Amino acid sequence: MTGTTSAVTGADLATVAELAQQLRVDSIRSSTSAGSGHPTSSMSAADLLAVLLARHLRYDWDQPASPANDHLIFSKGHASPLLYSVFKAAGVVSDEELMTGYRRFGSRLEGHPTPVLPWVDVATGSLGQGLPDAVGVALAGKYLDRADYRVWVLCGDSEMAEGSIWEALDKASYYKLGNLIAMVDINRLGQRGPTELSWDLDTYARRIEAFGARVFAIDGHDLAAIDEVMAQATLTADQPAVILARTRKGRGFSEVEDREGWHGKPLPPAMAERAIEELGGERALTVRGPLPPPGSPARAVTREAGAVTLPSYRVGDKVATRKAYGQALAALGARPDVVAMDGEVSNSTYAEDFAQAYPERYFEMFIAEQQLIAAAVGFGVRGYRPFASTFAAFFTRAYDFIRMAAISQANICLSGSHAGVEIGADGPSQMALEDLAMMRAVHGSTVLYPSDATSAAALVAAMADRDGISYLRTTRGGYPVLYDAGETFPIGGSKVLRSSPADQVTLIGAGVTLHACLAAAGQLESGGIRARVIDLYSVKPIDTATLTEAAAVTGGRLVIAEDHHPEGGLGSAVVDALTGAGRAELTVAHLAVREMPGSGTSEELLDAAGLSASHIASAARSILE
Amino acid sequence: MTGTTSAVTGADLATVAELAQQLRVDSIRSSTSAGSGHPTSSMSAADLLAVLLARHLRYDWDQPASPANDHLIFSKGHASPLLYSVFKAAGVVSDEELMTGYRRFGSRLEGHPTPVLPWVDVATGSLGQGLPDAVGVALAGKYLDRADYRVWVLCGDSEMAEGSIWEALDKASYYKLGNLIAMVDINRLGQRGPTELSWDLDTYARRIEAFGARVFAIDGHDLAAIDEVMAQATLTADQPAVILARTRKGRGFSEVEDREGWHGKPLPPAMAERAIEELGGERALTVRGPLPPPGSPARAVTREAGAVTLPSYRVGDKVATRKAYGQALAALGARPDVVAMDGEVSNSTYAEDFAQAYPERYFEMFIAEQQLIAAAVGFGVRGYRPFASTFAAFFTRAYDFIRMAAISQANICLSGSHAGVEIGADGPSQMALEDLAMMRAVHGSTVLYPSDATSAAALVAAMADRDGISYLRTTRGGYPVLYDAGETFPIGGSKVLRSSPADQVTLIGAGVTLHACLAAAGQLESGGIRARVIDLYSVKPIDTATLTEAAAVTGGRLVIAEDHHPEGGLGSAVVDALTGAGRAELTVAHLAVREMPGSGTSEELLDAAGLSASHIASAARSILE
Repeated sequence: MTGTTSAVTGADLATVAELAQQLRVDSIRSSTSAGSGHPTSSMSAADLLAVLLARHLRYDWDQPASPANDHLIFSKGHASPLLYSVFKAAGVVSDEELMTGYRRFGSRLEGHPTPVLPWVDVATGSLGQGLPDAVGVALAGKYLDRADYRVWVLCGDSEMAEGSIWEALDKASYYKLGNLIAMVDINRLGQRGPTELSWDLDTYARRIEAFGARVFAIDGHDLAAIDEVMAQATLTADQPAVILARTRKGRGFSEVEDREGWHGKPLPPAMAERAIEELGGERALTVRGPLPPPGSPARAVTREAGAVTLPSYRVGDKVATRKAYGQALAALGARPDVVAMDGEVSNSTYAEDFAQAYPERYFEMFIAEQQLIAAAVGFGVRGYRPFASTFAAFFTRAYDFIRMAAISQANICLSGSHAGVEIGADGPSQMALEDLAMMRAVHGSTVLYPSDATSAAALVAAMADRDGISYLRTTRGGYPVLYDAGETFPIGGSKVLRSSPADQVTLIGAGVTLHACLAAAGQLESGGIRARVIDLYSVKPIDTATLTEAAAVTGGRLVIAEDHHPEGGLGSAVVDALTGAGRAELTVAHLAVREMPGSGTSEELLDAAGLSASHIASAARSILE
Repeated sequence: MTGTTSAVTGADLATVAELAQQLRVDSIRSSTSAGSGHPTSSMSAADLLAVLLARHLRYDWDQPASPANDHLIFSKGHASPLLYSVFKAAGVVSDEELMTGYRRFGSRLEGHPTPVLPWVDVATGSLGQGLPDAVGVALAGKYLDRADYRVWVLCGDSEMAEGSIWEALDKASYYKLGNLIAMVDINRLGQRGPTELSWDLDTYARRIEAFGARVFAIDGHDLAAIDEVMAQATLTADQPAVILARTRKGRGFSEVEDREGWHGKPLPPAMAERAIEELGGERALTVRGPLPPPGSPARAVTREAGAVTLPSYRVGDKVATRKAYGQALAALGARPDVVAMDGEVSNSTYAEDFAQAYPERYFEMFIAEQQLIAAAVGFGVRGYRPFASTFAAFFTRAYDFIRMAAISQANICLSGSHAGVEIGADGPSQMALEDLAMMRAVHGSTVLYPSDATSAAALVAAMADRDGISYLRTTRGGYPVLYDAGETFPIGGSKVLRSSPADQVTLIGAGVTLHACLAAAGQLESGGIRARVIDLYSVKPIDTATLTEAAAVTGGRLVIAEDHHPEGGLGSAVVDALTGAGRAELTVAHLAVREMPGSGTSEELLDAAGLSASHIASAARSILE
């Protein structure tokens, strides 16, 4: 059957059956035309998506930004042919775009979906992330937007092996997210063979029920059953729902259906032709489901500029930058779009200051750092400005989520406390010594590392208006406030704390090492050596102009001190900047944590790592010889 | 009661009760003397550990390296006062060391346990890692050592929120690890307040049973009950056991028992005195439990040097480095200590070549990258040489595990395929663009990035004898073999592929960009410009001597091209090395992936990122102007 019909709304199941075949055919056509992609992983879930699109997804396709719309997230992002075929069926992507754009250079129909498309909330393709992201959107919907929209997620069965899926289900039930419905496409075949649990829906059901969700186990190719459970799944307000759909990979084409060896492979053209014939040929249905109900609340998120009064500190007082983070965040709470969450260490990161002031906008994520980041991404989808905090070391747990957040174009703010050996007795497991490298390498990221409370508070405020992934590194101990409350700290700037035209060497630090640089400059001065000192609070973007000038004045002689491993942190940032800015003549002493630290006091560990003032002064003297 | 007794073996429960109080007292004494630490988190689990040490842990304390010993892993590493008090009770740590060493600078009794201690297998302290590591040890015990030892793990209740715990339980049941017994210390209080599930042992039990383990729920302060379930837990050969122990944090001291606000805080001295009194005073019991049964099989792991014949390739043939990885790994399989595992993409990473040749030493980890790394760490504990592979991008999922593996002094080999925009149509979610930065920043790591099959195979062999965390970055597409089979590739070396004393500029690449550098050199030569070309296959350690010489010859003019984000990768490695080696005069053009890529062909995406030969040649011309 071929032919065009005008848009069907609330289609009957006979039409839905046709729509499902169309989705399969278009998944095959698009991937075969592209020469790559995952048609068989799309075909298994086509019946689910046909029913959802036609009868349950409340979505105004003409207004994708409408706050009343349901959300649809493909956690199995490799089923992009299916998603894009859904967009075609909804009438928002043309057949021509699907056939000539899919996976092509410059096209928005990328191999895995990203928010380059207006109907896509988050980038997926690294498995086990769509569901955690959806938990964030659903949290926003239930607790902040207080809206009626639902969040639908298509999961693959292979990704149920990712721990992050269970972090998500745990939080979905803890927070009673009745607005979250996950559909698991259990086609029993992964990339290189059968999945762990194959079609053992009972085990999936037991696990998911134990994690607090309602489970509906069905034949994923029975349209009536799908329709029935989708209706039921949306009826309960305080419990997430999971639809376990037993499906067959490649469903509808006998040459590949339920067969191994067909993951991630387009059908060769002749085979595609036979498949399309077996599926009843091409169709050109346009089908839309229900609109959001009238009277859905308008988006509540606003930014009330000017309401924020940052904390102020007295120069010389000893205040930990992590404390300034908490106080500044609490001050930012005057902005109703600011939300905060933490990984069960809010009394260490001082996110608790916000939690106490704005409990309704604070979300405890417990010790689940992947879900911590995913929740932030989800809040960002709904226009909120999320601040997520934990020990800086433990953001390594969520690096894949942070990387994907950048692809998702998420605007999220991260604060990592307890950086470096400075933390002292707890030992290396708690010391962030890779975080600057990790965060700098994220596309479009901002990396900030304040040395005092005044700059920390100012940078927290700056992060709240910054696009992309912003990261603040804070320190455990209290160190003297260096700056008056009026001082400004533009992102991309730096502060020259000591300078003269006669400077012979530049000392560059941030965080705890800046204080050591200042002390070292004093020691050097008493020995007749003039040292310039730079507070490099903005590690990325970096103040290349000030660094270049300092290098020019001081004969290219730099001492860079950082409480971080030698690779990818402050030292790399400085030499990357200077060597990227034209001819560079440099003599660099780079002090960093080069041996595995143990326990001890801050002072002992910083000294052992060669980061104390005397080491910095000594390094300066060495490069002046 | 105070006083010294000689070592008690197989102590009765009355003695065990005294031992438990001693463990509590010593946990308090050590943390109070240190001024930091987690006494209350130790006191809740003291009864569990007392019974285990005295009656169930089969361990020859005089021979900690004995392959017959049981293993004991503190997944809740912050309970180190308890662990070290156990070591004291076993007679291997003196009271003086405990009291003067704990958390002190230079001491082996660090804030969280590390394998600096001979009785500690792995570093813990980042929660949710001990149990996954233990799964690796148990896999080795059951399938490779085929030994009778058991792996005991103490988990905290807060860490049950980490997804990695569920990855571990899933794999423990999938692989029928009856030799694994986890004890969960459910003291209901986390760092900043109650846990998600508090004392809801039923929910814990349902979840854990659904994940395939046998569950024993008990009062964790009932010594007879603990004794009974520990005996039962070791009776089944093919199912892991989890003991859910309902406990009270700070058990035994009424001023803190089951109270909030006492996490991670030592008792002040006067309070410690009252606590010790309430606990019945100091004791000096030495208690050891059963030895491993006689006739436990000796360790099977040996290395048969010389048995390995690496694959060879013909210069000019197009072979993907990922394929060379698989073939070299299969060749290395001749060494019986080599084991391999993969995250369900072995047909992409080519770990399948090993899996086909040595199925008994291949372990499928499905899509659970955290467990993938943890399993490797566990195999390493038993002396095997693990190779773990997945898409390079997906190692970001396990960065915390990789970081902790370095603290664990693990010797593990990682291979990440599908690096950079070169992968083409799949899009950015599948592109590793942060992996070099991430892996370089790991303490003591080795980072390798071969450009052809010959060097890839040689480096795989070199990794197998390398200490620490070794990482190989491989490329999706096939590129010409550059080197004859006889060529050697020492770690820390590089290859100068084109050079003359008249070279004007140095082109530095690795992986796909090296081929572009070679083509660019040809283009430049036809324009009268002589370019030196360096294959920087060893990114860390790096060949500073060759780079320095090239910089000297070519007036410091370098073009560095990498299929990676600009931060922390090849470019940083080169400028870090050159600026770290004395006065450096450099003019650097650094070509890297600076914009978010989409889909396309390899050629389109490399060209769009500015990494094609013409861009490299153009950059070289620019810096020669």
